[in-house]
Amino acid sequence: MNVTVLSGGIGGARFVAGLRDALAAGDEPARVTVIGNTADDIWLFGLRVCPDLDTVMYTLGGGIDADRGWGRQDETWHAKEELAAYGVEPSWFGLGDRDLATHVVRTQMLGAGYPLSQVTEALCDRWDLGVRLIPMTDDRVETHVVIDDAAAPEGRRAVHFQEYWVRLHAPVAHAVVPVGADEATPGPGVLEAITEADVVIFSPSNPVVSVATILAVPGTADAVRATTATVVGVSPIISGSPLRGMADRLLPVIGVDVTASAVGRYYGARSNGGLIDGWLVDESDGDTVPDLTATGIVARAVPLYLSDPDTSRTLAEDVLQLASSIRRYAE
Amino acid sequence: MNVTVLSGGIGGARFVAGLRDALAAGDEPARVTVIGNTADDIWLFGLRVCPDLDTVMYTLGGGIDADRGWGRQDETWHAKEELAAYGVEPSWFGLGDRDLATHVVRTQMLGAGYPLSQVTEALCDRWDLGVRLIPMTDDRVETHVVIDDAAAPEGRRAVHFQEYWVRLHAPVAHAVVPVGADEATPGPGVLEAITEADVVIFSPSNPVVSVATILAVPGTADAVRATTATVVGVSPIISGSPLRGMADRLLPVIGVDVTASAVGRYYGARSNGGLIDGWLVDESDGDTVPDLTATGIVARAVPLYLSDPDTSRTLAEDVLQLASSIRRYAE
Repeated sequence: MNVTVLSGGIGGARFVAGLRDALAAGDEPARVTVIGNTADDIWLFGLRVCPDLDTVMYTLGGGIDADRGWGRQDETWHAKEELAAYGVEPSWFGLGDRDLATHVVRTQMLGAGYPLSQVTEALCDRWDLGVRLIPMTDDRVETHVVIDDAAAPEGRRAVHFQEYWVRLHAPVAHAVVPVGADEATPGPGVLEAITEADVVIFSPSNPVVSVATILAVPGTADAVRATTATVVGVSPIISGSPLRGMADRLLPVIGVDVTASAVGRYYGARSNGGLIDGWLVDESDGDTVPDLTATGIVARAVPLYLSDPDTSRTLAEDVLQLASSIRRYAE
Repeated sequence: MNVTVLSGGIGGARFVAGLRDALAAGDEPARVTVIGNTADDIWLFGLRVCPDLDTVMYTLGGGIDADRGWGRQDETWHAKEELAAYGVEPSWFGLGDRDLATHVVRTQMLGAGYPLSQVTEALCDRWDLGVRLIPMTDDRVETHVVIDDAAAPEGRRAVHFQEYWVRLHAPVAHAVVPVGADEATPGPGVLEAITEADVVIFSPSNPVVSVATILAVPGTADAVRATTATVVGVSPIISGSPLRGMADRLLPVIGVDVTASAVGRYYGARSNGGLIDGWLVDESDGDTVPDLTATGIVARAVPLYLSDPDTSRTLAEDVLQLASSIRRYAE
């Protein structure tokens, strides 16, 4: 069975870890491909940092700081201290000493002319993920967020997503733009991974700045609409609050209510030209299942938690079961 | 009083620290300029590493690991561990986490188009050295050493000086070539620092790969020959052994005996078209003073040690006194 997951950072990574474990315990040989979001990549101090790819890599590779959810375990922060002592900005990004090595290797390979997809493959080679991780594109795409700034000429300014998220802690936003997406091409293997999959999964990542940015690369959303795979997703919203992170801050910008149902309807039923066949909501949102069903989406309510490897695995099993039931129904 | 020092790494840095302390304790206002060797610079992992400049900067700035003599105090080595785990080479270079920040800032500034001299000034701004440190050139010069290699087509191969020194621990060498020196231009301020000095000092650095490489940049040696300053040097050899390091390994390559006298005569008396007016040898080499005097070099035997800040300062005082006595004699 070929399973392809669209993933952002922490939530997506934990989900994929559960999926890998669930499939490893199953009878059927399975291959998992993760299409990683690169729209929150940032150049810092001349180094290319890929937060979402690295979170997936470290989580699946056993190198993640499990409590924090990002960065390396047994991390130190001496280079960061020194960068601050030199007065170079930004000082708000969490750049650990171990993590820094990843960015140094990546930047050196990019400088030597390798595309990000090959660099990612080389880096993952060390970590033995048990899944294939591919970037959504080899091209530069950067999510910028328009925020209020009384000092700016128009009263607003655009900041890089990382500054919006990490430094400013997600203030009110007026627009989210994946700069460069229009001109980007899906990374090697992206369209094949969607087209040749049996199941495509939208992980419970941020719909606006993780999943939508992957889908914003021309050709990718069309491949999702056209694939013979069953496409199912997991709501990143539980009872009106994010499963984790700050997804609630950005949904209003794209006109989507902060509910499990609204996000499912935002993706839309494939049978009606949308992107998903099935949608998992939390038990507490079970009353939204009829609404979703009415739009053509097969919805199911289960416990949506990623609190530890066991709950992540259970959630992955529920997703696979939903996909399987939709597939059987179709047959 | 303007004092200009030609310096390599550890020995030169310790000498300059002593010189700064000696001058600070004196009555006369003094300005010290250090012309730093950059011929052992190396690009590692896409980062520009300047071992000699950094050793001077960290030593004078109070950030050096005093026991090791190079790199940062309170250093950790996590990025280096990770680079090795990724399998990227070289693994033999001591790249600490704190030190790494210096190279990241430098590389970013170089990438933005700043010349090394401006980058060095910006880095030094943080450290408050009490002296001005300028690179010998803004151009790329790299010392390569020809060694035996049975597997190479001609039985020999050339390696970067850092590989020769750090990785291979200075095996027998057949040639030392400062690649790029011919085409290089002295860095901003280098010629002025020599021309406008009252005293120019050859620190007890490696004659072959530190002092000679600075002098190999066209124009620099001529400025030393022509300056109105008194030019004095400190022998890096005591009783046929290096004051520190492995200077003895490379002197034979340029046909110079491993003695204090031979190194002094290698630089040669300015009165005979050479580079120095005065030369300090260790007490144990006092019997060589007549030989040196015969060549026109004013030699003096004093204790040559750089074991702690006090001995470094005493040595600097001896150097200044030698220069002063030569100057008085000339007047």
